[in-house]
Parts: sequence; structure tokens; C-alpha cells
Amino acid sequence: KFGIQVGLDELFPASYAAALYISTKYPAIKKAFVIGSQGVMDELAAHGIDSVGGPTPEYSQNFIHTEADFSAVELDKEIGAVVCGWDLGFNFSKLATASLYLQKGCLFVGTNGDAYDRLSDRNIPGNGCLLKALETSIGKEAEVVGKPSQWLIDHLIQSNNLDPKRTIMIGDRLDTDIAFGKKGGTATALVLTGCTSPSDLHNQASPVPEEMMPTYVLPSLGSIYSMARTELPPPPPTFLAVDDEAPPG
Amino acid sequence: KFGIQVGLDELFPASYAAALYISTKYPAIKKAFVIGSQGVMDELAAHGIDSVGGPTPEYSQNFIHTEADFSAVELDKEIGAVVCGWDLGFNFSKLATASLYLQKGCLFVGTNGDAYDRLSDRNIPGNGCLLKALETSIGKEAEVVGKPSQWLIDHLIQSNNLDPKRTIMIGDRLDTDIAFGKKGGTATALVLTGCTSPSDLHNQASPVPEEMMPTYVLPSLGSIYSMARTELPPPPPTFLAVDDEAPPG
Repeated sequence: KFGIQVGLDELFPASYAAALYISTKYPAIKKAFVIGSQGVMDELAAHGIDSVGGPTPEYSQNFIHTEADFSAVELDKEIGAVVCGWDLGFNFSKLATASLYLQKGCLFVGTNGDAYDRLSDRNIPGNGCLLKALETSIGKEAEVVGKPSQWLIDHLIQSNNLDPKRTIMIGDRLDTDIAFGKKGGTATALVLTGCTSPSDLHNQASPVPEEMMPTYVLPSLGSIYSMARTELPPPPPTFLAVDDEAPPG
Repeated sequence: KFGIQVGLDELFPASYAAALYISTKYPAIKKAFVIGSQGVMDELAAHGIDSVGGPTPEYSQNFIHTEADFSAVELDKEIGAVVCGWDLGFNFSKLATASLYLQKGCLFVGTNGDAYDRLSDRNIPGNGCLLKALETSIGKEAEVVGKPSQWLIDHLIQSNNLDPKRTIMIGDRLDTDIAFGKKGGTATALVLTGCTSPSDLHNQASPVPEEMMPTYVLPSLGSIYSMARTELPPPPPTFLAVDDEAPPG
């Protein structure tokens, strides 16, 4: 659509970040309990990490109906991490099982912390809601490895040999996309066709913090053409990442 | 067991508090969406409030499998409140539906905010986890009407013609039971057979705040006999409420 060729190895969803984080920082962990989609389990598998939970039939319905059921939950000793991603199949039994693994000291990784996503005139609860439930159950916070984690931007810049001065981060959210680019020292461009409106940018009651203020604001993604021709110094910038989420509505 | 006769009208579970709160403060609300058990729905019905959600078959399994399913969720215009209580059948679809009602401006009531309950050597996620998920999805906090709400202790004292000076609140949690009694100006007694250990009471790293410090500490509930005989001035105290939860493990 935009004439930009993107290979599979140039897309970095948060599930990839989670799998990469565990496999590089905690190589001894070979099995995880997952709240999340099949995509999370696939990314873990691609990084040599087996997983249970997610959308598998055993976990698709609540199986804890009584306190006795809870007490009878058997834990798999090989599991060393809990990965929490967005999960339309989230339920109490997954929450309770993940909480038990965390009580045993498993690594606690969140793919992202978005409170909600916008779908036309409705907000659908995001992974931030599921993470908060799990965090509340153990009184500890997850390590969120997707945007805007410092770990991920450092990794992307190093592994792709990017020069931050010649790189621009484009996205539709101030608190994830723009904050992410700024942590990496890249230029940033906010597109207004997603989660953020001009009034969010100029809200006097809650001004945008400096670490989330974009370098450029674009009415739409298409504006990058004219911007690349006129506003940035040559050579043209490297495109680090367009937001990995589908546009709303 | 203790020789204390308790009638049904002398037990005040958090679900009762929620139903009473809505029916007295918001009498125009006649229908609610429930995250919670059948007990919550029964209490609402007893106060003239119809409800959907809870453990009914339509909501017992996830029915939102795609973003299109979410966009197609139809809201019932008669529903004026969301009540969130502990729910072993909690799932994403209930969370998303409750969030939609709250986005439309429905009253938001939580029965209690307990992060977890102790079951032998395991903590099971409590209603506080479900509440946090829902609160995160809309960026607003619920009105928690169970212990330790000021509204509930005021109501119990007034409606039962209790004299706080002759009343003692007995319970096993500092942040709910003891804080609750202190808000009502009653004496308080902590029993050590539940959630709280002597080391919690004397933790120098996180000292117990004054508003949660009990008047008396009892090794067990049975100690109230000797306490009533020896330590409190006559006449013997009125017993306001023994903790309404089953003892753990």
C-alpha cells in the first residue's frame, strides 16, 4: 500500500519481544505458562520455549469451580516463566494458575501494558487490564518487554545496526510508540488516524510530558512521503517500525 | 459452636451491602450487570434489582472471539449499574461487557477489594484483582461498599441502634475488618487464626498504620469468652459482626 517492502524478520510484535527477552536473558527457562494468544505460544516455540495455557482446550474454560479445585491445581516444575499477553480467552482459572506459578517465583513478563484499544466508539479492555489483575494477586509488577521498554529499543537498534539519528519511530500512541522512540534517541512521528487526537496533544489540563512529545505530527501515515521529501535533512530516514497493531475501527 | 445465636438478618455479606447501597442511594436503578456469584444476583433481587451476567449460561463462557464480536455486543438500556464481586467464572467477555456499561456511565460498585484470600499455602486471586482489571479498562475506580467502607459501618450502626462504645468489631484482616471497626468508632479485636500473623503486627519495615491497629489481639475467636469476662468494662459488649468469610484452609 505504501510501497514499503517489509519482511517477516522486520516485524517486531510484543510477543516476539517476550520470547526474545526470555531466551536471551534467561536461557535456562525452557517452558512458560501463557496468558495470551496462539501467537505468543508460537513466538515462544520459535525461540525454543515450550508453553502451556493460552488458547489450548484445557485452559479455554474455567476449571476451578470450588476452593478445593484451586487447592488441587498441580504445578509443572519445568515452568520457569509466566508470559501475560492480550487474551480474548482470559478467565479466572488462567489467572489463578498464572498467579500460582508467580507465587512459586517464576519470571513475570508482560508483552505490553495498554489499558485498552479503541474500536470505533468503544474501548476494548487491553492487556494492561489482565496484567493488573495478575499483578494485584501477587503484589508485584511484571516486566513489560514490548513498547516502550528500554530493553526492546536498545535491542532493535543494536541488532539492526540502526543509527538513531537517521531513524524515525512512527506510531499512534504517545505513551507507547512515541515514548519508545524517544528512549532510543530516534526522531518520532505521531499519526492522528489512531488512538491520539489533536486535543490529546494540546490538553492544558494534562499536558503531554516531554518524554512522550513527538518530533512530528502527521495527519495520516501517507504524509510521510511529503515529510521525507521536504522536512527532514537528507539522507532520508530509516523507518524503524510502523505500529504493529491493526488500525482501529 | 460459640453459643451465639445469629439470625439471617444479622449477617451482612458484601453482596448485601452492594444491593442495599444501590437500592437506598440510587432507587431509580432497577437492573444491574453482575460480575460475581449467584449470591450477588440473589441479594440484588431481594432488593428489587434485576440482573444479568454472573453465573448465567450466556456469560459462563467467552463469547467474544474477534473484534467484530466485541463491536456487536448489544447493551441493555435498562441497566444502570455494574456490580463487581468475586467470580470464579470471571472471563474476558464479562470484563468487556461490564467495561462497556461503565463507558456508558453506569454506576460502578465493588463488593470488596481483597487482593487475595489464603487457602492453606496458596493465595487465590480475590475480587480486588477483578476490580483492578475493570478499573484499568475505564481509568476510574469503583465505589467499594463492603468492609471497610464508611457507608456500611455507618449504616450498620444506625440501622441496628448500636452504641459504638459498647460494640466490638472482630476480624482477621487489618485493612478490612479492623479498619472498618475503627471507622465506626468501635473497639476492635484481631484474631490470629486467619490472614494476619503476629509478625504482620510487629513488622518494623512496614508498621501497621494507626487506623488499622486493633484494640485487642486474640489468639483465637474462643478467647472472646475470657476477654468478655476480664478485660472489658461491664456491661458486656454487643457483638457487631464476626467475619463473614469461612476460615482459611
